[in-house]
Amino acid sequence: MNDGIKSREKAIFEAGIKLGALYHQFTGSPVSPESVDSLERAIEESIRNQAHVESISVKIDRTLLKENLNRFGYTELTGLMLEVELAVKVDETCIHAEMKPVEGYPLMLLLHERT
Amino acid sequence: MNDGIKSREKAIFEAGIKLGALYHQFTGSPVSPESVDSLERAIEESIRNQAHVESISVKIDRTLLKENLNRFGYTELTGLMLEVELAVKVDETCIHAEMKPVEGYPLMLLLHERT
Amino acid sequence: MNDGIKSREKAIFEAGIKLGALYHQFTGSPVSPESVDSLERAIEESIRNQAHVESISVKIDRTLLKENLNRFGYTELTGLMLEVELAVKVDETCIHAEMKPVEGYPLMLLLHERT
Amino acid sequence: MNDGIKSREKAIFEAGIKLGALYHQFTGSPVSPESVDSLERAIEESIRNQAHVESISVKIDRTLLKENLNRFGYTELTGLMLEVELAVKVDETCIHAEMKPVEGYPLMLLLHERT
Repeated sequence: MNDGIKSREKAIFEAGIKLGALYHQFTGSPVSPESVDSLERAIEESIRNQAHVESISVKIDRTLLKENLNRFGYTELTGLMLEVELAVKVDETCIHAEMKPVEGYPLMLLLHERT
Repeated sequence: MNDGIKSREKAIFEAGIKLGALYHQFTGSPVSPESVDSLERAIEESIRNQAHVESISVKIDRTLLKENLNRFGYTELTGLMLEVELAVKVDETCIHAEMKPVEGYPLMLLLHERT
Repeated sequence: MNDGIKSREKAIFEAGIKLGALYHQFTGSPVSPESVDSLERAIEESIRNQAHVESISVKIDRTLLKENLNRFGYTELTGLMLEVELAVKVDETCIHAEMKPVEGYPLMLLLHERT
Repeated sequence: MNDGIKSREKAIFEAGIKLGALYHQFTGSPVSPESVDSLERAIEESIRNQAHVESISVKIDRTLLKENLNRFGYTELTGLMLEVELAVKVDETCIHAEMKPVEGYPLMLLLHERT
């Protein structure tokens, strides 16, 4: 195994860690149309702190959010509301991954761009 | 039991729910000096969504945060970093509660102001 | 305000804290028909550790669980699956509270038994 | 890129997801010497539900647990208390990963066994 492969594998592992962490840290948070902007920013800035994160974009689906409001005008963040794009860099190798709803399941997947 | 007492008891119960929820939803979040502002705002706006919350203020202790940074420049939000002031209103009865570190324990307590 | 009232109010506040904590700590946990027993026991034993908890019973709705299994044979614990009975004691005052689904919302409520 | 490499990369990504999920779902749980067994079992059985998990072992450090008990006789599960061994299988490729404390940091790492 050469170093290039090792960096790539480590970056892929780290990308998985970040998506799993984001999901289980922040789903369940109370969220409404009024508070959705601050939650998106906080999730981005929180996960960006973690080791090897090069960039992250978090979008919460406003349509799905509004469809799920309870009688008090809010709902809980669910995995299906999340669209996340993530770049993780180890040494010189950058890996892109994303989370998005696919057929009713919040899928996490690797994208095959590289540097 | 008269209605006044019932409203007061319900408000006290709701105040407890909010503090327990806030604590176990958001502790563990990665946080750094750069991201602490957005996390404070998101926690406030998230919990403010919940039923009966009249007002909420969340402050994260920057000194404790900086003392706990890991080698990657961030740490995790802990209960001891949190200072929360919360007002919950049921009917016309408003209850104030807070969370703050007392003797090394993140204490949640009722304050005996009323409207 | 006499001591009896103060104990009762404190017990009510503590009951709220426990239910809010339980909800936001454990919802989101992967759960299946095979693992539901161990999750129920762990939630009970975990929350029973907290100050002033006299007793706790946690039941996860197997029917709702099975209706929500994903293609991999599991789902996530949601508030609507939870039925919780909780007794909290401060000094000699015991308060009973519960969480259960009411009209599509995971309601937390005080019960008016006393000792 | 051949299929063998793709399976291996996918397994590495999935291993990261599981460790990130486990960490941020279950840290913060109240735990004591009396309840630690049920929490270990519940974490194992919960994460074992997730897609592609072949096996998982979760051990919580009793010594560290006891050193951190608060005045009420419990503490919160932290990353530093966790030792996790995980095997994830995609197609015929099995990846081993672990989490354990290394120099005061809860490190997640890939192990280089293969099938």
